[in-house]
Amino acid sequence: MSPAPLFQRIALIGFGLIGGSIARAARAQGLAGEIVVTARSAATRARVRELGVVDRVVDTSAEAVKDADLVILCIPVGACGPVAQDIAPHLKAGAIVSDVGSVKGTVLRAMAPHLPNTVHFIPAHPVAGTEHSGPDSGFAELFINRWCILTPPPDADKAAVEKLATFWRALGANVEIMAADHHDLVLAVTSHLPHLIAYTIVGTADELEDVTQAEVLKFSAGGFRDFTRIAASDPTMWRDVFLANKDAVLEMLGAFQEDLSKLTRAIRRGDGEALFDHFTRTRAIRRGIVSLGQETADPDFGRKPAHLPKKAD
Amino acid sequence: MSPAPLFQRIALIGFGLIGGSIARAARAQGLAGEIVVTARSAATRARVRELGVVDRVVDTSAEAVKDADLVILCIPVGACGPVAQDIAPHLKAGAIVSDVGSVKGTVLRAMAPHLPNTVHFIPAHPVAGTEHSGPDSGFAELFINRWCILTPPPDADKAAVEKLATFWRALGANVEIMAADHHDLVLAVTSHLPHLIAYTIVGTADELEDVTQAEVLKFSAGGFRDFTRIAASDPTMWRDVFLANKDAVLEMLGAFQEDLSKLTRAIRRGDGEALFDHFTRTRAIRRGIVSLGQETADPDFGRKPAHLPKKAD
Repeated sequence: MSPAPLFQRIALIGFGLIGGSIARAARAQGLAGEIVVTARSAATRARVRELGVVDRVVDTSAEAVKDADLVILCIPVGACGPVAQDIAPHLKAGAIVSDVGSVKGTVLRAMAPHLPNTVHFIPAHPVAGTEHSGPDSGFAELFINRWCILTPPPDADKAAVEKLATFWRALGANVEIMAADHHDLVLAVTSHLPHLIAYTIVGTADELEDVTQAEVLKFSAGGFRDFTRIAASDPTMWRDVFLANKDAVLEMLGAFQEDLSKLTRAIRRGDGEALFDHFTRTRAIRRGIVSLGQETADPDFGRKPAHLPKKAD
Repeated sequence: MSPAPLFQRIALIGFGLIGGSIARAARAQGLAGEIVVTARSAATRARVRELGVVDRVVDTSAEAVKDADLVILCIPVGACGPVAQDIAPHLKAGAIVSDVGSVKGTVLRAMAPHLPNTVHFIPAHPVAGTEHSGPDSGFAELFINRWCILTPPPDADKAAVEKLATFWRALGANVEIMAADHHDLVLAVTSHLPHLIAYTIVGTADELEDVTQAEVLKFSAGGFRDFTRIAASDPTMWRDVFLANKDAVLEMLGAFQEDLSKLTRAIRRGDGEALFDHFTRTRAIRRGIVSLGQETADPDFGRKPAHLPKKAD
């Protein structure tokens, strides 16, 4: 007989890229006796039923969380407060309640007041993603070798935190514990600012007078395409991230603007030495990321076609 | 007997990522009777000899171009003028002289005055690259399905342009013909501005007070790492690009700054609708690039590990 699964029942509220990947990975790893899913839209619920990757799909959050040992909100951060209010009366005593939002301070402050003292509220943020969204976009390997940051309140139950950490490790993630506000500052620079910049430049390129959109698309391999992947991320999720982490994002934007002005001035003045020094420093940072295993060192990622055409003759 | 190769002798001046890739691909495709290489540094020349991927390595540019039918300068754009002056007296009549620089107007104006009327000067720019540089970084497949833009002067010989186009197509590239100044505007937005932004943000992240460099590296998968690849490109090459294409880059920077101010204002005011609209538009642009075959639609490029760890038990 197999050993007992980590959780008897897991409830996932929302089934986009993250929810769908959690479900697939948890099933593959045998982490739940039963996986119950709900989603706001009837179309998503119908699609999840068709996919057949979970045990049960129900129509309401209240129904989904009933008797669940682990409840994860896999929805945009702006929706977390209302859903917490909604599920609060139906939570099982002793359950772990978590989320996957990219901002933690706001989510913590929005959810905590609604939740009963009988549950363990431990916010989480798996730092993983692709440009795709929707119920079909998830895959079981999404979290492998990615970080999942837990931001338990200072008085959180240690055993519950450890149990949630065990869950994420079983999905392939490395777990880090951090205060919610520090998380928001770190992510403002490693994720939110890059997304904002990418969204900006892709928009800029779309509106030029002297260069057509067709030309931008055609010659994107010179660097532009690297920005478009993250500028194609889910619009609702990212709208909520910027609204929820406003202060930290504005702070990082200020630092970025100062640095951009410095480089702009170097270009205007023809100061090659300043440019060269800056570019040499940033190259070293890239090497640090590759050596930490957070990136592949393959040239061009996996984009390189395998073969040259048949020898010319 | 094999048919005659496209060129009897090809001379490559410089052997970094691009020169090394041209050599490997031209040899694989049998495009040259002989490939002769030179490089400024003795260390590079010694390494090219060891690699054994070309026919002959010589010490000077003058020697390299002797009797060559095709001469390609594979060096930073700032070095093209002096090298053109250097090789001019030694060029074979009827030879095609080209380059691979990311800026075309400046290079054209720097090289053309030195070259004799007896050669065909046809600047070129293969829009392809990786973060790696040096004699070992090249590979034969670099140009497959990438664009190579030729910017022949208005009075260029049509047969010579077509012959150079045939050469690049045989390396796997798609060829586009464009005026040099328009090329510089297109590349300012699709390549030079993205690089400048990436260089800036990677530098910004490196200098924060409240977030450590270790944290930035660790949590880079949230978006930041997408910028680091291009911010790790060759510093000398990119210094020269920004100095040589100053006007177009400053123009694009101005447009970018306006758009960034608009999004910053939307965040400050909590204008979720403006953010959502912008993010929806940029997503469509990404899809255009993928459908044009200039990017893979695979989630996470080739970064996804293949397997979950053994099922937990």
